[in-house]
Amino acid sequence: MALGSAATSLIEKVRSDREHGASELARQCLAAIASFARDAEVDDVTTLRDNLTQLARELQQARPAMAPVINLVERWRMAFEKPGAGELDETRAQAVICAQALIAESEQAVEKAAAYAAELIGPDKLIMTHSLSSTVVRVFEILGSRARAIITESRPPGEGRRLAERLSALGVATDFITDQQMGLIVSHADVALVGADTVAADGSVINKAGTYLLALAAREREMSFYVCFESFKCSELAAADIPLEHHDPKEFSPPALPNITAHNVYFDITPMHLITAWITETGVRQRFSPATA
Amino acid sequence: MALGSAATSLIEKVRSDREHGASELARQCLAAIASFARDAEVDDVTTLRDNLTQLARELQQARPAMAPVINLVERWRMAFEKPGAGELDETRAQAVICAQALIAESEQAVEKAAAYAAELIGPDKLIMTHSLSSTVVRVFEILGSRARAIITESRPPGEGRRLAERLSALGVATDFITDQQMGLIVSHADVALVGADTVAADGSVINKAGTYLLALAAREREMSFYVCFESFKCSELAAADIPLEHHDPKEFSPPALPNITAHNVYFDITPMHLITAWITETGVRQRFSPATA
Repeated sequence: MALGSAATSLIEKVRSDREHGASELARQCLAAIASFARDAEVDDVTTLRDNLTQLARELQQARPAMAPVINLVERWRMAFEKPGAGELDETRAQAVICAQALIAESEQAVEKAAAYAAELIGPDKLIMTHSLSSTVVRVFEILGSRARAIITESRPPGEGRRLAERLSALGVATDFITDQQMGLIVSHADVALVGADTVAADGSVINKAGTYLLALAAREREMSFYVCFESFKCSELAAADIPLEHHDPKEFSPPALPNITAHNVYFDITPMHLITAWITETGVRQRFSPATA
Repeated sequence: MALGSAATSLIEKVRSDREHGASELARQCLAAIASFARDAEVDDVTTLRDNLTQLARELQQARPAMAPVINLVERWRMAFEKPGAGELDETRAQAVICAQALIAESEQAVEKAAAYAAELIGPDKLIMTHSLSSTVVRVFEILGSRARAIITESRPPGEGRRLAERLSALGVATDFITDQQMGLIVSHADVALVGADTVAADGSVINKAGTYLLALAAREREMSFYVCFESFKCSELAAADIPLEHHDPKEFSPPALPNITAHNVYFDITPMHLITAWITETGVRQRFSPATA
């Protein structure tokens, strides 16, 4: 069955998005499902249900490295697919409500996770991060301008530039560096904090390429490396089984020469042993819990 | 005493050079001294000697993070300053001969160091490097097209692009990545090999920013991390006392926003405990020598 051009364009938009993190993109998928449910030119409930289910599946397949896209859409599908004897309008409304409820649930999870992270880190700290995570931005919003930041260009495409805009507007004093300067500057930071695109079954974190290097540098300096994320980012898969996104190397204009093959892998894997704590809406999970009496 | 415009322009060229590694730049300094000695419009030996000595001192000060610039020019000064009762033409010739002899000595040292590195690594290996080192290029020339390479963009300014041209011409199958992809791809390599701008007294290596991240990633994979350099790169200073070069952040067009401060530090420090072996013209020094019977 071919979905219409509206759905195809929604899927393509998700597939080619290089601007948004996994959480934002997942919520945009739900918004897209709601918008499609509202406006789809169909005449009967069965066609609407079939189209919506197919749209959901194709959205999930569009970004297999982003667990929240898969998980939130899956949750929507489970809620929506419960047999209902509704009319067409009722079914449209049900699809929209399911999507909106999950968007709200995801937003609240991010809010809670960010609050836990802000509490754990505390005020007046110099926080080093990599790439652009909406959850990490929320932590800075909570901490306010008493926090300071070290951020990286994170290219391609350079999400750090958009993070700079956000932190500048918040009044957070921020040092901006190229990715390769991470190793030297990390010694000035108090703590490293990153978001995640996906958290694998064993706690390894899939995030923008370079995150693993920051984690290695943090450990070398005996500095805490925190990952903050909503639980929708947890995958049941092992890290090795999660496809990392390979994008067109043209994004960074590599030299076009014989014998030279350029690569543009967007993610890397930070193994669990480099992570000090996982911070979600359910609280803080430390790698080594202090012994309790 | 003000040196003439020819000397000033030679010094400025060395100061603003972003193309050449420390060895090449040091030899260019010697060539500049020879050229100045030949052509300086002076009428007496004392003025020539004074001008040359001042030129040498200013060349050394132009790149304080690059030990070979300091060391080779110092060696030239020591050789040239030996009291001689020569005429003007004789003094000019003496300055040129001293410079040429040191250029040859440096080139031979690079050649020998590269030969030791090629022997240690052996054929058919996938060698990962960072930035552009003329010594590392020489290793690839010796190994020929049976070697393969993983190289990084190394920006700013992106020396990896010029390394790609060299390896492409040598027929070396090469993977070209952005700097932040180092962590993921390192697991494919057999060995990491870099050059050095300066080697500190304790064996720590000052090299293009990002080298330290590669060393951390190599250790995590239990992969050898070799540094290959001519001994003129050895400094008597501790790493912390060697000034790292801070260049204009405009080189990477950071966002110009309130509260955002961009940094462009060209070098980082790879501590000695991350280095498997130091390879110079005198041979291979392993960090942990195997016990001998």
